[in-house]
Parts: sequence; C-alpha cells; structure tokens
Amino acid sequence: MVSGGIHAIKRSDIGAIVRFIKNTLNRSGCSGLIVGVSGGLDSAVTLKLCADAVGPRRVTAIFMPSAVTPSSDFDLTSSLSRSWGVGHETIGIQPAADAFAEILSLSADDHIGMGNVLSRCRMTVLYSRAREMNCLVVGTSNRSECMMGYFTKFGDGASDMLPLADLYKTQVRQIAEIIGIPQEIIEKVPTAGLWNGQTDEGEFGIAYRDLDIVLNGIDKGKSDGEIAEETGTCIAKVSEVREWVGKTEHKRLPAPHPDITLSDP
Amino acid sequence: MVSGGIHAIKRSDIGAIVRFIKNTLNRSGCSGLIVGVSGGLDSAVTLKLCADAVGPRRVTAIFMPSAVTPSSDFDLTSSLSRSWGVGHETIGIQPAADAFAEILSLSADDHIGMGNVLSRCRMTVLYSRAREMNCLVVGTSNRSECMMGYFTKFGDGASDMLPLADLYKTQVRQIAEIIGIPQEIIEKVPTAGLWNGQTDEGEFGIAYRDLDIVLNGIDKGKSDGEIAEETGTCIAKVSEVREWVGKTEHKRLPAPHPDITLSDP
Repeated sequence: MVSGGIHAIKRSDIGAIVRFIKNTLNRSGCSGLIVGVSGGLDSAVTLKLCADAVGPRRVTAIFMPSAVTPSSDFDLTSSLSRSWGVGHETIGIQPAADAFAEILSLSADDHIGMGNVLSRCRMTVLYSRAREMNCLVVGTSNRSECMMGYFTKFGDGASDMLPLADLYKTQVRQIAEIIGIPQEIIEKVPTAGLWNGQTDEGEFGIAYRDLDIVLNGIDKGKSDGEIAEETGTCIAKVSEVREWVGKTEHKRLPAPHPDITLSDP
Repeated sequence: MVSGGIHAIKRSDIGAIVRFIKNTLNRSGCSGLIVGVSGGLDSAVTLKLCADAVGPRRVTAIFMPSAVTPSSDFDLTSSLSRSWGVGHETIGIQPAADAFAEILSLSADDHIGMGNVLSRCRMTVLYSRAREMNCLVVGTSNRSECMMGYFTKFGDGASDMLPLADLYKTQVRQIAEIIGIPQEIIEKVPTAGLWNGQTDEGEFGIAYRDLDIVLNGIDKGKSDGEIAEETGTCIAKVSEVREWVGKTEHKRLPAPHPDITLSDP
C-alpha cells in the first residue's frame, strides 16, 4: 500500500496496461516489441508486461552495456529473459561512445556529458534493431522520472510507447510485487547507470517514497505549504521539486513552432 | 507567388518567426542557439533567421559531414556563416557512424539503416555541443517534411524549437528569396544527404511544387477527389500522399501511455 493519497495499484490497472501495450502494437502494424533492459526495476517490469501482452515470442530484450556496466546486470537480464521466454541480445555500446568522446573532445570526467552520449547511443541501437526486426521500441520511463525530467532528451526518453509513464516509481514497485519480479531486482538501488556510484535518490536529494508523495501533491494542484504539511517534507524541498518539474518541462513537450500557414481566414 | 491556394509569405510572417525564435530563447534561460547546417536551403534559412532574431554572436552553425558529404558543402556553410557573422564549427561524424556499423553489423549498402544512424549521430553531436555552450538546438524541418514523416525519429527530427515547421517547402523558398539567401542554395536539389544520389523528390515521386498543393488540400480537409480536380494531380498520387501522412503520424506525436494514476474519482 502506497501512502500519501497515491492511487494503490489494483490487478485491473495492470490489465489496462497490458491491453494498452497489445492495442498499441496491433494499431502500428509492426510485428513485435523491443525493450532496452538494464537489470533495473522499470525495464524488468516493462519487459514482463510486454511478454504478457503480446506473448514472449514477439518480445526482444536488448542489453546494451558500457564500460561502467557491472557484468552482474548481464546475468540478471539474460536469466530473466530466459525464464520468461523472451529473446535476449547483448550489444555493447562502448565503441560508439568512445568515437563520440573523440570527435567531441569529451573529457572522461564529464559524467553528465558522457552519460547523455551513452543514453543516445542506446536509443540509436534500439531503433536500428527495431527497424530490422519491424518492431516498436517500448520505453521504460515512469512518472516520477518523467516529471523530474530525469532522462536524456532523445536518449532513454525516446520510444514509441511508454506503458509506465503514468505511474510513480512506488507504484511500479507495487506492480513488480504483484507480477512476481524477483526480489533481487525490486530491492536494487535505482540508478540510471551512467557513471559509477550514480543513484537516482542521490541526485534528487530525496527518497522516492517521499518524492512521489510530493509529486502527487503537485499533480493534484496543491500548494507547497499544503504538500509540506500533509507529507512532513520541509517546504524548501517541496519548492525545489516543483522547480525541477518546471525547469524540465521542455523535455516533456514537443518542440514549439510558430503558427502561420493555416492561420489565414 | 505560390499557387494552389497556399498562403503567400509576407514580410510580417518573417517578423513573426523571428519574434518566435527570440522569445523561445529568452524563455529558456539559455544563452544562444545552435543550428546543424548542411549547405541546403532549410538550414540556411533557419540560420539566417536565428542570426536576425538574437544577433549573430549568439548563434553557432555546426557542419557535420559524413563520408558521403561533398566538400563543397563545407565551403558553402562556412562562407555563409562568415558573411552573416555567426560562429562555424565542423565536427565529422563518420567515426561514430563507423562504430555503430560495427556494433550493429550494418551492411554498407543498407542506405536507410545507415542514414538513420548518421541522422542520430548528428543529433547526439548537436545536443552535446548545446549543453557545453548552454544553447538551444534549433531544428530545420519544414511542414512538407514533417507531414510526410521525411525525417529520422529522434534524429534530424529532434530539436528544442522548429521555426519552419509550419511552412511548406515552397514557402521556405519564398522566405529565402525575401531574406537574400544566395541563389546557389535556393536552386540546389533538395536532399537529406544520407546517401549518394538521394533526393527528396525522387523519394516522394512528386515535385515539391505539386506535393505542397496536395498537402495543403489535406490540411484544409479536402477529399482526394477535390484535391485531384483542383491540382491536376492524379487521384492515385493524392491517395498515396495521404497514406504517407497517415502512416508517419507516430513520428509527429509524443509516445502514448495509458492513463491510470490520476483517473481516480
């Protein structure tokens, strides 16, 4: 049970997500689904829901390690794929990342710059395989990440459908418990895995448990004061989260353009 | 004068685009603009409008040749940049494209597969430089390309603003004449430049002059029969264009997601 007034996930919600995945694939005319898998919670949940929605034979998990990816993540993603009967491919992206580092003269300690490059290399790999296999790319972003803008624009934020985009991280954990994701994955510390030691909560400065309640307050139109009072989070932190949401709005919206041609009377 | 009932560009339209660019930059809090330039019409027009909007010192043109890019395009983009007083950088993307070809086992004659990789490499370069320079990435897509889906998803279609996205190609040519783009560029055969011999009109199977009139008919809600009668284009071609627009809708829309969390009473 998620606290703080957040909608508690029911089996019928999971059914709705599964139907959404199936209908989106059917409407597209493509023959299957591709999911970039990391060994983390969101991609494991997404992969399982895809397998349930369209059958495991139409789903391929693609694991794309870089130089900072622990080899245990390969073991995790390949054993999950095997146990669910979905295809599993490994495509290492470090050679492409190294080429970008060279042509862009990126310094090895520019974590964020290199992290963005890694994320966009993964998108490029997923879409290349998707075209060859006539598949859609299924994104793994959840609502907490989307609202915080915690993704690389046109990198891990890029996909053809986002089954989890309406669910806070704590709700994704609820789904994971219900559909039987291994505890090892549920208990992993969430990380984008773009550099050693990176963790989501370390970057946000707040635990997901608290963050999601704050985000839900913002979603429901409450003031900073109300949210702070109801959640016990200090008001400065609530304001900071709201500012983060506002500053990253451009990452969630289509690129703007002026209206000219059809504005004639 | 553009025929077929398409809005004819006036100086006030150009003023509106220039204000849009300036306002979008000001609202973003970034310090300048980056435009990926190819030597073609759309990027030349976009670059000049950006320079007019925010002053040439806040604008950087980035030329990103691959192995199939003619060296004359370097001369064109660098001389334009010099004459307008904007910065000009060249970053060759072939090493990154080669790395992808290797890790993806892409065959050299898979033109479309390699073309998509080149386009996404350019996006990755533009966003890397944009972050380092605290700039927005200005896209160069026009309405004809957008409607036809004639861009790589998360490649050249990826940007922070799209000043030309509401204008058919023939209208972009009108702007070019008004703002003094060199005739050499206005008269170039439009190409995405992703492989030797590629041309937009060759891929569409229809000239922009005719395509734009058909697209304008679709935009105005006319039937295939009405459009064919008014434009003199055969009805099969009109249907084919409409089908192309429909099939590429996913490239213009945000990735869909199911609604769950906030749908509670």
